[in-house]
Amino acid sequence: MTNTDEALATIRAGFHLSAQRVYLDGNSLGALHDTVRRHLDTVVSRQWGEDLIAGWNKHDWINLPSTVGDRIAQLIGAGPGEVLCCDNLSINLFKGLAAALELNAPRIRIITEAGHFPTDNYIAGGLANLLGPQRCQVEAVEINTLETLDFSNVAVLSLSHVNFRTGTLRNLPEITARAQAQGALVLWDLAHSAGVIEAELNRHHVDMAVGCTYKFLNAGPGSPGFLYIAKRHQSATNPLPGWMGHADRFAFEPNYRPAPGITRFLTGTQSVIAMAAAQAALSVFETVTIKTLRQQSLALTQYLMDQLANNPVTSGIECLTPGEAQRRGSQVSLRLEHGFPISQALIERGVIVDFREPDIIRFGIAPLYNQRADINIAVTTLADILKSGIYREQRFSQRATVT
Amino acid sequence: MTNTDEALATIRAGFHLSAQRVYLDGNSLGALHDTVRRHLDTVVSRQWGEDLIAGWNKHDWINLPSTVGDRIAQLIGAGPGEVLCCDNLSINLFKGLAAALELNAPRIRIITEAGHFPTDNYIAGGLANLLGPQRCQVEAVEINTLETLDFSNVAVLSLSHVNFRTGTLRNLPEITARAQAQGALVLWDLAHSAGVIEAELNRHHVDMAVGCTYKFLNAGPGSPGFLYIAKRHQSATNPLPGWMGHADRFAFEPNYRPAPGITRFLTGTQSVIAMAAAQAALSVFETVTIKTLRQQSLALTQYLMDQLANNPVTSGIECLTPGEAQRRGSQVSLRLEHGFPISQALIERGVIVDFREPDIIRFGIAPLYNQRADINIAVTTLADILKSGIYREQRFSQRATVT
Repeated sequence: MTNTDEALATIRAGFHLSAQRVYLDGNSLGALHDTVRRHLDTVVSRQWGEDLIAGWNKHDWINLPSTVGDRIAQLIGAGPGEVLCCDNLSINLFKGLAAALELNAPRIRIITEAGHFPTDNYIAGGLANLLGPQRCQVEAVEINTLETLDFSNVAVLSLSHVNFRTGTLRNLPEITARAQAQGALVLWDLAHSAGVIEAELNRHHVDMAVGCTYKFLNAGPGSPGFLYIAKRHQSATNPLPGWMGHADRFAFEPNYRPAPGITRFLTGTQSVIAMAAAQAALSVFETVTIKTLRQQSLALTQYLMDQLANNPVTSGIECLTPGEAQRRGSQVSLRLEHGFPISQALIERGVIVDFREPDIIRFGIAPLYNQRADINIAVTTLADILKSGIYREQRFSQRATVT
Repeated sequence: MTNTDEALATIRAGFHLSAQRVYLDGNSLGALHDTVRRHLDTVVSRQWGEDLIAGWNKHDWINLPSTVGDRIAQLIGAGPGEVLCCDNLSINLFKGLAAALELNAPRIRIITEAGHFPTDNYIAGGLANLLGPQRCQVEAVEINTLETLDFSNVAVLSLSHVNFRTGTLRNLPEITARAQAQGALVLWDLAHSAGVIEAELNRHHVDMAVGCTYKFLNAGPGSPGFLYIAKRHQSATNPLPGWMGHADRFAFEPNYRPAPGITRFLTGTQSVIAMAAAQAALSVFETVTIKTLRQQSLALTQYLMDQLANNPVTSGIECLTPGEAQRRGSQVSLRLEHGFPISQALIERGVIVDFREPDIIRFGIAPLYNQRADINIAVTTLADILKSGIYREQRFSQRATVT
């Protein structure tokens, strides 16, 4: 084993994963690492249970949004003091877009991708609704029109680094540079790339970014989001100014004075338990580099695509995820007639994938814990299900509320 | 023992409280109940650790904001489907105020209390800043001017049910009726009353309310906030429209369609771990009524004020909290020269209180776990500290970042 293989094997051994199951849904909800479980027990029983109010100072709870944010910064190529872990992605996006409009006044146009994760476009629409058409306009364009789009009157371009449906990785450096060359700001949603792809935000001069910690960062269901604002933009106004972003929180001053730096983008108090889970989940990344994880991810998604192509039963399935490594995120999305019942049959047989309307099955690859053996089982099981036609049984067609 | 005494004794026995310490800061951070610790262990190790993505359906994580919200509703006199547990108080307040302005157009004035908890006023200011002076104006008035204030062009009145500094309980029924009689909407901040005082929101026809769960509801440091919007106002627009408030979350539709009812006021994904802690913490309230807790709270704050008055060393201290039961929250606030070092000396001797600038020591009473014995120790210790003058020692004057 190489040093990398050893480091990954050690990490993998700490995840709570059943031997009876292949988990390929880390792009939706990451797995539990024992480090997280143990740290949560300490935070709940010892820090809160024993130290109570003193915990805010003794355990530095008050600075968790910054300390956890700084750790995320290392994974996405940002500097210290450029990332906060707080709230959720949608709310952080609202803050980022409002700040971008202010910074880039008098421009008022927000451009998004039509195929963006829906909440991103809903939030942009919500901001436009608040500000009114004289101060904000949102336009969702097809991604393939970006190349010829005129950015000369665009305030901010809001895109996903990896498309959630197809797993396509956007060309962040090129798109950022092109939009900025015409004076637009660029905000990236890293939900499906943080923890598996080097975003290198500073290197590519990215203005803003948002993301979540519950996918490849493994911080638990619904764990907090994050917000990156480049140092040069941190004088902007937080549209949701709360006491945690005040220059002197515990002076309880009647008037709002924004804290220096990114701290001003905090609003209310954050869940210490949720933040602690994120802190512990990020500590799992300490022994590997994001570059190593990207290599591992690419090797596994390539292996998955190869195995699908080599199996006569699966070789004809349309793969929405690009074959070129530089355009591929950390998932493989297949378009399949009867996609929903097939996904349910896979889950029943212990291959945990997810389904996205109308006909997409996503195989997420989490390089921290997925291996070739997982992929072998997944492809064999998929072939069995297709060959046997078992997915046509009535019970596989029943929709649950969440997948 | 009466049935009530027995019920409270049983509950009290479940809290993690040290015999070496008197905890009188439940108005800032509630204590850990063993029910919460055990439930969190189950949610982390079993629900997330074993069921992973399936947990969203299997354990109904997806509906926690509503199910926990409905439980809070019972404590504040609201109906099912009128309360969400989500985000934090500041963000919920932003949603409520924006919705109130929309509902009460063309009125644009927000009236708040000058002595309001600061974040409430910062958030109102942030909304005004976004909307501009043609669409929103905020005015913070002294509380004693409310009686003569003309509400005829006020869109919404935003007040605290209990003032965080003085512990004064506002006359919610009377103030609500007076403002509404002139067409204003009324939004109450229940941060310092939820769990200890019957707010009876429906009975008093309150329009909106916000609060937090980390004080008297004991859901842990920084645990989620809540938002009450009366049924009659739920057609309003959520200014932060995210996918969790969409009518069909997992259809991933390009356009936002608000869910019916209060669900539309959700934005992004909530921390399941944080929500689970709130759910368990609220289950502790199942065996007592809020009426009982209010009686217990009043008896204890009265006892504390009596003990202070009866002790020759403490009898001269100015008490900011009203003596009349109907004007008293669940804390006793004393104004003391050298308040800060005295509070630190109390803490060093195991009487956990907190300090608020410039000279206020707060003794919070949590009727679920505080008893007369706590108060006896607190008053005796305070008298000792004052008599001995020990608080004049240098080390008690060093400020921490949070108290």
